[in-house]
Amino acid sequence: MATITSFFPNSSHCHGTVGTINVLGISQTKYVSSWGLQVKASKVNGTSRNGGILLPANTTVVMKTRMMMDQKKMHPNMVSDVSLGRMVHNGFVFRQNFCIRSYEVGPDGRALVETLMNQLQETFLNHFKTAGLTHHDNYGVTPEMCNKNLFWAIAKTQVEVDRYPRWGDVIQIDTWISAFGKNGMSTNWMLCDCKTGDILMRASSTFVMINKETRRLSKIPLEVRAELEKYFVDTAPIIEEITSNFPKLDKNNVYVRNELITRWSDLDANQHVNNVKYIGWILQDVPELILESYELASMTLKYCRECTKGSVVHAYTSVLGDNNGGIAYYDHVDCQHQLQLDVAGGDGEIILEGRTRWRPKQW
Amino acid sequence: MATITSFFPNSSHCHGTVGTINVLGISQTKYVSSWGLQVKASKVNGTSRNGGILLPANTTVVMKTRMMMDQKKMHPNMVSDVSLGRMVHNGFVFRQNFCIRSYEVGPDGRALVETLMNQLQETFLNHFKTAGLTHHDNYGVTPEMCNKNLFWAIAKTQVEVDRYPRWGDVIQIDTWISAFGKNGMSTNWMLCDCKTGDILMRASSTFVMINKETRRLSKIPLEVRAELEKYFVDTAPIIEEITSNFPKLDKNNVYVRNELITRWSDLDANQHVNNVKYIGWILQDVPELILESYELASMTLKYCRECTKGSVVHAYTSVLGDNNGGIAYYDHVDCQHQLQLDVAGGDGEIILEGRTRWRPKQW
Repeated sequence: MATITSFFPNSSHCHGTVGTINVLGISQTKYVSSWGLQVKASKVNGTSRNGGILLPANTTVVMKTRMMMDQKKMHPNMVSDVSLGRMVHNGFVFRQNFCIRSYEVGPDGRALVETLMNQLQETFLNHFKTAGLTHHDNYGVTPEMCNKNLFWAIAKTQVEVDRYPRWGDVIQIDTWISAFGKNGMSTNWMLCDCKTGDILMRASSTFVMINKETRRLSKIPLEVRAELEKYFVDTAPIIEEITSNFPKLDKNNVYVRNELITRWSDLDANQHVNNVKYIGWILQDVPELILESYELASMTLKYCRECTKGSVVHAYTSVLGDNNGGIAYYDHVDCQHQLQLDVAGGDGEIILEGRTRWRPKQW
Repeated sequence: MATITSFFPNSSHCHGTVGTINVLGISQTKYVSSWGLQVKASKVNGTSRNGGILLPANTTVVMKTRMMMDQKKMHPNMVSDVSLGRMVHNGFVFRQNFCIRSYEVGPDGRALVETLMNQLQETFLNHFKTAGLTHHDNYGVTPEMCNKNLFWAIAKTQVEVDRYPRWGDVIQIDTWISAFGKNGMSTNWMLCDCKTGDILMRASSTFVMINKETRRLSKIPLEVRAELEKYFVDTAPIIEEITSNFPKLDKNNVYVRNELITRWSDLDANQHVNNVKYIGWILQDVPELILESYELASMTLKYCRECTKGSVVHAYTSVLGDNNGGIAYYDHVDCQHQLQLDVAGGDGEIILEGRTRWRPKQW
């Protein structure tokens, strides 16, 4: 496990040339693993994964990256949207390019939030696949997870979007994983515009393990820890974690859509509704006035339980503050969201709670 | 305009090496354009587009292709999912590769029909863009179409699927355009598996022009014809056209989903519901028993009118024959579909009519 800080120092720009990463400095600090384990970052699968530099367990590697595209050398149309991506930063970061397709943008020409979230999922899975962590191309499931009938589920997601790419834009997604508490894993993502080098979006998710049979939360077994932690970096999450609970939703001031019935086609390979589907559900309940004039600037989502085929779900969206009507005059609009299972005669369990912040569209 | 026949002769396989096309033979036949125009295929923009071979107007070019991947030379993971694709067949065919992503497959691991249809749309638009036909990266709109306030709409689509790709599979899509009657254009697509060379899917659509202001069908102006026809090939559609009308839908034997309200997020850049969204709407009304045990083998869709924001749509799906219940015992199941606008006190205009054929899933 390596400790990497100042990964992308306070900047709205990825510096450097696409495809090359320069390690500009290495410094020593005290390192404490949140899992209480210390391993040598330099030895993974018997080989050096830090460019030949042996790092003791309590080492912080300060990597400053240079990712600004050299536009003199590479025409934007020549940027390859390679299928599987590759490991960079000495094997600690996975990188993949995506070309935004015509059907991945909304009527305003910007990439849909669901598109970007789907691409994060794709890089998460390809990261595991490329690192050799995945059992038989299973969806992010390691051999020991497979032995113990476990799969990953997202517990929390935080996203900040600076700018939305458009059709034909090529974006670069970097992702890396860290330990999170005793039984979680944190995944971080950074999206950049390959042409300009601008950071477009940052995201951080907490993953937990679910037992396939009982569908209940599981501790992370020691054998699985051992598989994962050689790929962990000890950075702070790319977005500072919001730990406070969501306030109680004001159901007197909500847009409700009843009888949202989960169908076979809503399921993913884990036979439950995919986390990005939830995002689609809450976004389609945001008032059209907001969707048309504003763009999503940030969101925090807390996934409380899974949802399977045939469930009936109520989606609630509440526009916070006094700005329910004349939203065009506000610098930003905040919404609160809740997805709740339908049960006869009362409120069912909450599936998802979330907050979204919207700012006027940047044309 | 060139006349290309026997493009992909009776075969379920794309022969040859990915990325290289060999013209194996040229023969002469009589050529009649369905637009009543004859131009020299060999001269486009003042240059020869047929590899230096000058072709008179009444020439049929028989191109046999060799597209079988040389697996000894290229590992499947090395196949590039290049963003924009390229022109092949001397500039008459556009080719683009796609890597199937994790979020583009259903719970059974197969690519979703909507995914494949979206990829057809992407290649249609990139074909126009790469050929230099598009005005300012507009969505398939040529400069003369832009001058005359016109855009493309699909009137009819026919699709045949042989096999569905899975997550990580790289597919190759070839597309080419032809004249269709006086005021239409036919677009053909062929999808192959880059690893095996198998043909996965064939599709053919008829496009018509719509006036942006009046939202009504338009004739194709002479100036637009001139822009398009140098890219036309005179092949028969890759799927034989079914010209018969759909029988009246038996509304006593249908699955109905009421109050499907079109939202801002259902719209595309032309500010109407995208044709692939219609497909999603009809497929989600297919009985789950069919969705889970069968796969779509073919479909024929007739787009009757456009649908804009705020419309209320009724979706009807009828399972044909006596096999509504024990479908597991049938070689195939046919469904009939209709999307109809809601109007108070009666039936509104039909937006879409369609037939789908389903066969037991090929595991």
